[in-house]
Amino acid sequence: MIIRKKENWFKMLFVMKGSVLPRVFPRLLLLLVLSFLVVYARGSFFHMKIQLNPAPFTLFGIALALFLGFRNNASYDRFWEGRKLWGALLNDTRSLARQALTLGVYPKDAAEPKAFIQFLIAFTYSLKHQLRRTDASADLDRLLPASLANNIKNVHYKPIMLMKEMGEWVQRAKQDEKIDSIQQAAFDENLNKLSDIVGGCERLAGTPIPYTYSVLLHRTVYIYCLLLPFGFVDSLGWMTPIIVTFIAYTFVALEAIADELEEPFGLAPNDLALDAMSRMIENTLLEMTGKPVVPDAAPTDYYIS
Amino acid sequence: MIIRKKENWFKMLFVMKGSVLPRVFPRLLLLLVLSFLVVYARGSFFHMKIQLNPAPFTLFGIALALFLGFRNNASYDRFWEGRKLWGALLNDTRSLARQALTLGVYPKDAAEPKAFIQFLIAFTYSLKHQLRRTDASADLDRLLPASLANNIKNVHYKPIMLMKEMGEWVQRAKQDEKIDSIQQAAFDENLNKLSDIVGGCERLAGTPIPYTYSVLLHRTVYIYCLLLPFGFVDSLGWMTPIIVTFIAYTFVALEAIADELEEPFGLAPNDLALDAMSRMIENTLLEMTGKPVVPDAAPTDYYIS
Amino acid sequence: MIIRKKENWFKMLFVMKGSVLPRVFPRLLLLLVLSFLVVYARGSFFHMKIQLNPAPFTLFGIALALFLGFRNNASYDRFWEGRKLWGALLNDTRSLARQALTLGVYPKDAAEPKAFIQFLIAFTYSLKHQLRRTDASADLDRLLPASLANNIKNVHYKPIMLMKEMGEWVQRAKQDEKIDSIQQAAFDENLNKLSDIVGGCERLAGTPIPYTYSVLLHRTVYIYCLLLPFGFVDSLGWMTPIIVTFIAYTFVALEAIADELEEPFGLAPNDLALDAMSRMIENTLLEMTGKPVVPDAAPTDYYIS
Amino acid sequence: MIIRKKENWFKMLFVMKGSVLPRVFPRLLLLLVLSFLVVYARGSFFHMKIQLNPAPFTLFGIALALFLGFRNNASYDRFWEGRKLWGALLNDTRSLARQALTLGVYPKDAAEPKAFIQFLIAFTYSLKHQLRRTDASADLDRLLPASLANNIKNVHYKPIMLMKEMGEWVQRAKQDEKIDSIQQAAFDENLNKLSDIVGGCERLAGTPIPYTYSVLLHRTVYIYCLLLPFGFVDSLGWMTPIIVTFIAYTFVALEAIADELEEPFGLAPNDLALDAMSRMIENTLLEMTGKPVVPDAAPTDYYIS
Amino acid sequence: MIIRKKENWFKMLFVMKGSVLPRVFPRLLLLLVLSFLVVYARGSFFHMKIQLNPAPFTLFGIALALFLGFRNNASYDRFWEGRKLWGALLNDTRSLARQALTLGVYPKDAAEPKAFIQFLIAFTYSLKHQLRRTDASADLDRLLPASLANNIKNVHYKPIMLMKEMGEWVQRAKQDEKIDSIQQAAFDENLNKLSDIVGGCERLAGTPIPYTYSVLLHRTVYIYCLLLPFGFVDSLGWMTPIIVTFIAYTFVALEAIADELEEPFGLAPNDLALDAMSRMIENTLLEMTGKPVVPDAAPTDYYIS
Repeated sequence: MIIRKKENWFKMLFVMKGSVLPRVFPRLLLLLVLSFLVVYARGSFFHMKIQLNPAPFTLFGIALALFLGFRNNASYDRFWEGRKLWGALLNDTRSLARQALTLGVYPKDAAEPKAFIQFLIAFTYSLKHQLRRTDASADLDRLLPASLANNIKNVHYKPIMLMKEMGEWVQRAKQDEKIDSIQQAAFDENLNKLSDIVGGCERLAGTPIPYTYSVLLHRTVYIYCLLLPFGFVDSLGWMTPIIVTFIAYTFVALEAIADELEEPFGLAPNDLALDAMSRMIENTLLEMTGKPVVPDAAPTDYYIS
Repeated sequence: MIIRKKENWFKMLFVMKGSVLPRVFPRLLLLLVLSFLVVYARGSFFHMKIQLNPAPFTLFGIALALFLGFRNNASYDRFWEGRKLWGALLNDTRSLARQALTLGVYPKDAAEPKAFIQFLIAFTYSLKHQLRRTDASADLDRLLPASLANNIKNVHYKPIMLMKEMGEWVQRAKQDEKIDSIQQAAFDENLNKLSDIVGGCERLAGTPIPYTYSVLLHRTVYIYCLLLPFGFVDSLGWMTPIIVTFIAYTFVALEAIADELEEPFGLAPNDLALDAMSRMIENTLLEMTGKPVVPDAAPTDYYIS
Repeated sequence: MIIRKKENWFKMLFVMKGSVLPRVFPRLLLLLVLSFLVVYARGSFFHMKIQLNPAPFTLFGIALALFLGFRNNASYDRFWEGRKLWGALLNDTRSLARQALTLGVYPKDAAEPKAFIQFLIAFTYSLKHQLRRTDASADLDRLLPASLANNIKNVHYKPIMLMKEMGEWVQRAKQDEKIDSIQQAAFDENLNKLSDIVGGCERLAGTPIPYTYSVLLHRTVYIYCLLLPFGFVDSLGWMTPIIVTFIAYTFVALEAIADELEEPFGLAPNDLALDAMSRMIENTLLEMTGKPVVPDAAPTDYYIS
Repeated sequence: MIIRKKENWFKMLFVMKGSVLPRVFPRLLLLLVLSFLVVYARGSFFHMKIQLNPAPFTLFGIALALFLGFRNNASYDRFWEGRKLWGALLNDTRSLARQALTLGVYPKDAAEPKAFIQFLIAFTYSLKHQLRRTDASADLDRLLPASLANNIKNVHYKPIMLMKEMGEWVQRAKQDEKIDSIQQAAFDENLNKLSDIVGGCERLAGTPIPYTYSVLLHRTVYIYCLLLPFGFVDSLGWMTPIIVTFIAYTFVALEAIADELEEPFGLAPNDLALDAMSRMIENTLLEMTGKPVVPDAAPTDYYIS
Repeated sequence: MIIRKKENWFKMLFVMKGSVLPRVFPRLLLLLVLSFLVVYARGSFFHMKIQLNPAPFTLFGIALALFLGFRNNASYDRFWEGRKLWGALLNDTRSLARQALTLGVYPKDAAEPKAFIQFLIAFTYSLKHQLRRTDASADLDRLLPASLANNIKNVHYKPIMLMKEMGEWVQRAKQDEKIDSIQQAAFDENLNKLSDIVGGCERLAGTPIPYTYSVLLHRTVYIYCLLLPFGFVDSLGWMTPIIVTFIAYTFVALEAIADELEEPFGLAPNDLALDAMSRMIENTLLEMTGKPVVPDAAPTDYYIS
């Protein structure tokens, strides 16, 4: 995720880091060159005049903007839903930590609640690793007792298995009469919510916006931009390349951003900062058990992973 | 569902598998031929000049794009709600499995929780078969004891009858004092959610977008595209067929995709992968009882059913 | 509700049943005649030329399409919320039936749970009759014991009184020690949901989209269509009537559909099939008590009430 | 709220009562006069020709329609959320009444549940008075025992204090062993919902759409309409006043409606009928205790407050 | 937040306080000057005519309006979600206060419930300070016992630590047998909601709209406005500066408002009045314990912080 303070309106016109411009620059350059060629040839192609004018481009450009708006909305909703799910993860792990610390009749500083909180942290990291398809082993080793860590490493749905582990912790607490049925039910409800969070993340990660949409809009944007110089060369002359590139910049960039936001759990510049959020969850849960918070490193180049 | 990695921006312009282009190709070809005839006849029809120009097409094209955007939105929302319901099914069956395994006082590896988890898997498959109007018998035989499988085969609302079965399992567990009233209530709440999921799926499958909308927009899109060449022939000349087909491609394709997404539980290329999701639910639930996960076969031609 | 399979794209252009065309046909015919007169008079009116051109119609047509899109959205949301409420009714009555059959300690085939399920069915029908302002007596007589049926007939908020009846059933079950406090609470929660459903339906039925909106948009659509021929007569000549009627068809039809969907509980062609849904709820609840399902009659002319 | 049956499409064009036309009429008349002056002066102003044409008005008119659409949506959402909150109030008070009548072990016709239902009615009216900033004294005197009514009159957050009163009723019921802890919790949950409803209403009443938005859009709409005649006078001539007033009617009226709906709890023609809804809640709750329903008076001039 | 009564439609055209005009005035002035220069030079730049016309500006202006509409929506949703979260905070703290006062068996005017309510107030202020990055010490000292205030000052996630404090209060109440397990669970559920509120606020404060979006739209709006005078100079002549500044006013102002609403917890004129809301929560909670309400000071210059 790009974290950058808003500059004043003038400086913001020239910002590079965090803008999508560097990424789409080569494509725009290509279009700029093409436009110059079109102007130079006065819209002819092998001595055949390409007979186009702005009318169909106005009609279709607005339609395209509408469809792009739809794609944009859908992508942003996915991004924001991903963020909400990780927000819910924060809330729910905090609630479960509070329950572990205050619902039962454990003596102050008992080991069991702290073990439960370690499960919550390991759960968070293993969900992160599952979503990013990275290896969870190091984090599991760091956070869990060795034998359990090894068990979890060998299963496929790691966060779910950790949730079962938490369910068994609650069952033991019940059997040891540290909590009663009602307190068990209170834990159980928050575990249900954790299950909803895992499934919600898997849903976003596993079901993209229908591929056909992406292809159709991608294609339409690029063909449209390609034809633009032919439509405007007669009326705009040597201004054609500038105007065409400006319009194309917005359309192409919006499509590129939408494409990036669609999968919010990746490592692209605008994706969610799962690493930072995992560390924050670890910090806030540990602070509840009395440990001081280790502040996060500052982002490099405005980017946090 | 089409599962295909995003290509780079250039290759994606020429993708065929997963695009809706092959499906709408014949209609576009027809329009292309018509446009050529119109240009050839210089917009006349039996020596009568069809007096049209771009103005009404601009006005109406944008209006049409708006209405198509509405239809698109509604269809995509249905698709996404269908996906959310199956996501909720995953979450809820996992929660119920966890409850069966950890809420009561069954000894480790007892048979009862495993039987309950089989109910959950059978429930998932019978919901899939109901939504796709396919025969559930094979899956019921595979997953349930013979007598119960036969009972369920003969009822009309199979998932509901399996839920009643689960309700009775919970009742027996209560009578055998494996769980108390409070734990029973925790099960009961998750069964309520299962009921909401079944009903939600039935709602999507049984109530399409009002038929009148579909007819109106379908008709408007096609008449509009049909009239387009007459409107542009005078100003675009021999470019008319290309521009008209390009505009029509986007409009017709969007309408076709919207039509497909509207019924997300079918077998069309962009419909939800209910088969794969059912297998995934089976896998994750079985893994909770200690069975290893069987990985899914790779999709053929980027398509999974 | 119109239930009709999607035809192929070509046949769908000529569908009549289920289209809104027959309903708006007279108005369009009127406009067609007016357009011909305008062309015949070359846009003059009592020898005074009406000086109009497409520019203001483009500007305003697109604005109008936007506002119509808003109205459409709001109407469709109401339609879909109505459908969701009836879906929730299905889910919730099934959940309550399951609770009546499996939560308590009634012997198999006891009369009490079946009586409760009869309450649920009577509740469903009385809600339907309240929403459609039809007489509930026949259904109440059919479903309830005579004395209770007579009591309910005389009250104003029938579904609510049946809910109180269900509350008393639960209270009796508690006093007879068939259920304990916790199971009572589980019933109570689902009764709360029933209460939400009744209120939600009453809200949709009692509070239309603000009347002022409907009037404003209705008026704007019709005046716009009326002025259209004057705007296009100079540039389109004898094509004016066709183009104007085509544009007007879409605008007028969309407004008419929006108007119909706004009140989803009526008997118009696109309204919800409350009759069929009530029968379905009756069927699925009775099947849970062991009765076989009576299949629904096929729709006549694609319409089910 | 305006309650008026939909007329047929033709009569609806001339409806006055319930239309916003009378309210915006003076402004439109002003604009009409201005337009005539502009046409008369052929777009000159002190012998200086105001050089304008339709192009910028098309561009900006559509942009304006978009922004107005946004404002409209936000206002309508507020209106509908207000309605939903009062719907939830109906549902929740009914649920609480059902709980008071059937959850505990009070004898039939006991005084306590009836007293609780009186609290619910008084709560409803005091919320209405708070939202409309009217005096609640008469209703409190009518509904509550004198001493309690006096206490409530002197506090600032009346509905909240009545909720505390209900909490104490539940506490007494618990102490008198009419209900147990679990039934107390069922009441408590519905009281939580009541608290959400009060807060939701206060939120809508206290936080309007940001004032800056309202000012910006208001200003833009009026300046736009004011400039319109200059833009169209050259091409439309004496038709200018008609077209300009027609366009302005829609824009100005939409802005005026949006402004009215934004504060749904007031007394403007399109605001919510809080009086009628409060009486309905009173009626339905009293009917549950056996009292017959007093039908509402018919609306005067299609308006109910 | 700006709190200002709506003026009549005419006066509202000239409102300054609460309008965004003063803030964007310098930029508009710059553009006005530029436009005059462009008209003076008749669109030439160093004797080279900039060949532009309105066509591409119409096309792109509408597309831009659409994208701006999207940004606007997203920002307003964030603003409104922030408001909803603080509304939920009000509701939930009231519910918890009611529970503290009426759920348990404390004697009237016991000290414990009042201490709990002090925690709720301190929680509210510490959340406000965290969101605004201000120092919470003064409020903590004012509201909490000295030793606890000092503990809280030293932790990083202050509201969460106060929630743990509340959890321990509930635990003590349970151990002292003032409440039983079920009442404890009722508290616990509302504490879960508090946790959701904190996390929701942190989510809004920590995850802005993707920076790339803001940069792209900002840039597009300003370049568009900068090019506008060149596009209209030929057709509008000396009217160019007026029309261009008018269009730019709306676009630039909308972008500026969207930018401001995006971060609703700040101190900008349109941000949420967290100070006032915190005082209101304090007031309403204290009134429940019998203290009279201190009315808020009137806003200065229509602004409350």
